Amino acid sequence: MQEEVLTAMPITFDGYGNVPGIEVGRSFVNRQVLANAKVHRPLQAGICGTAELGAESIVVSGGYEDDEDHGDVIVYTGQGGRDSDTQRQVKDQELTRGNAALVTSQTTGAPVRVVRAVRHPSKRSASPSYRYDGLFRVEDSWHDVGRSGFRIWRYRLVSLADYVPPRQEAVLQEPVGRDNPTRLEARVQRIVRSTRVANFVKRAHDFACQVCGNRLRTPTGAYAEAAHIRGLGQPHNGPDVAGNVLCLCPNHHTLFDFGTLAIADDLTITDRATGAEIGRLREAPGHQVDQAHLAYHRDHYSEGWKHSPDTSE
Amino acid sequence: MQEEVLTAMPITFDGYGNVPGIEVGRSFVNRQVLANAKVHRPLQAGICGTAELGAESIVVSGGYEDDEDHGDVIVYTGQGGRDSDTQRQVKDQELTRGNAALVTSQTTGAPVRVVRAVRHPSKRSASPSYRYDGLFRVEDSWHDVGRSGFRIWRYRLVSLADYVPPRQEAVLQEPVGRDNPTRLEARVQRIVRSTRVANFVKRAHDFACQVCGNRLRTPTGAYAEAAHIRGLGQPHNGPDVAGNVLCLCPNHHTLFDFGTLAIADDLTITDRATGAEIGRLREAPGHQVDQAHLAYHRDHYSEGWKHSPDTSE
Repeated sequence: MQEEVLTAMPITFDGYGNVPGIEVGRSFVNRQVLANAKVHRPLQAGICGTAELGAESIVVSGGYEDDEDHGDVIVYTGQGGRDSDTQRQVKDQELTRGNAALVTSQTTGAPVRVVRAVRHPSKRSASPSYRYDGLFRVEDSWHDVGRSGFRIWRYRLVSLADYVPPRQEAVLQEPVGRDNPTRLEARVQRIVRSTRVANFVKRAHDFACQVCGNRLRTPTGAYAEAAHIRGLGQPHNGPDVAGNVLCLCPNHHTLFDFGTLAIADDLTITDRATGAEIGRLREAPGHQVDQAHLAYHRDHYSEGWKHSPDTSE
Repeated sequence: MQEEVLTAMPITFDGYGNVPGIEVGRSFVNRQVLANAKVHRPLQAGICGTAELGAESIVVSGGYEDDEDHGDVIVYTGQGGRDSDTQRQVKDQELTRGNAALVTSQTTGAPVRVVRAVRHPSKRSASPSYRYDGLFRVEDSWHDVGRSGFRIWRYRLVSLADYVPPRQEAVLQEPVGRDNPTRLEARVQRIVRSTRVANFVKRAHDFACQVCGNRLRTPTGAYAEAAHIRGLGQPHNGPDVAGNVLCLCPNHHTLFDFGTLAIADDLTITDRATGAEIGRLREAPGHQVDQAHLAYHRDHYSEGWKHSPDTSE
């Protein structure tokens, strides 16, 4: 059956996004059939993709002890560092191959196909089947110490199923040039809260970035973003209080979220890409940044730079 | 009935977001009752809000000849410039009061309550009733020449109804500090496409911003955003081709979208906030920017600066 699908597949499918002809919810009896359908091409690896182009697909198998599957939100564990016999974590995971691919997906906003291993409840020991569960985007990536005591890479993936792209219908009626309509689901959403706390912090700094002092101007005033140091919600569980928020320009917000910027307890800022100290976090009366949240950020967004192939760039 | 609602309203309601106790879809017999319920406070104006804090609510009455109501997407016309007797547009609209408030909502991402005037199909001449249709965000703002021949301000509002904030459930379980949970719907989504065209343009420039040359670095590579010069979809109908895309850093993407940057046909860049020429758009082999799209952008995102109270800043 999957062979029919392959034959019908338009030549424009480039590996990312929905596989033409494969609807969400379709089941595959094993990894070979799943691979033949090009939904998830490797037979063993949980992540399909490259550091350069990003991840095409992942399999959520429940095989990693640190995975969390909340349905529309998945906290996924990177690959590597497991003993091939016991499947136990025996060393640190590195930011290479599939792990790097998922970070690249975060930068590009390209959607990642999610496949879940489904085990029959009364036959837990039998081989699972595999269900294609649709497209997700990588919202966050960081490292942690797993239950095993070794470093693991983690990713927060959010379902795109309920997300209706505001302009999609209209776009599909337009000439799309050299583009491929199946790629229109690919988006980055830099989500910036505008809570009372966020507004308080932005006003305290008069919308000037706490890293560079830049203040973006719009016709009706200034624009700044409120960056949570320790993310809200699962799994970071940071509080929505002023001590956990920075007033940043969009560039430094992006760099902070990727761990390119490290902020020390004394508020000196280091650019991890160059190793250079680039200044000190600007302060404002009434806004005290909580050092515990800065430490959390340093502890979970720093390792990429030590293992990045790009650091010599 | 509305009085009961007012009595039950928590003291924390600050005018923005859902009014506690008022469900989406509730109807109000006239503007006075609507105002009493605090869903839309002014009795005549279509926009409630201030340039400083943003818009609380709008009424979509169909009274402006240039409004477009697509359900989840509304292209809304600003206020002013109409003859009070004939309701015809007789002069240019200015970027002040409600019109400026809607631009501020775009910068803060705060949700705007949308009320629609509902006319009985068989009694078109009777007074309409007013239905609260939920929260929208302002995705885009620009100016145009209306059917009347005068300048009008326009806003693209997108419903937040189908948008499930990824972290909302988790956040609601967390201590929210000084924040008000009803404000969690307030978000800015800077949506950046990662289509094949976008990737082509970003790679052509090796992820360096075409305005400043800055290249943001992440652990797995570089980060840039593809900015459509003429927006895709209704009502701008720009094409998704490389000539309509710029490779920008997040800061210059934000400034370009607000019209702070003007790019001339000879690719010189002017900062409208200061009036200073700040350089020339960087070019890359194989990527030719289409002057027609630059002209469209200049024609629709420039007027705010001429009328902004902030330009002397």
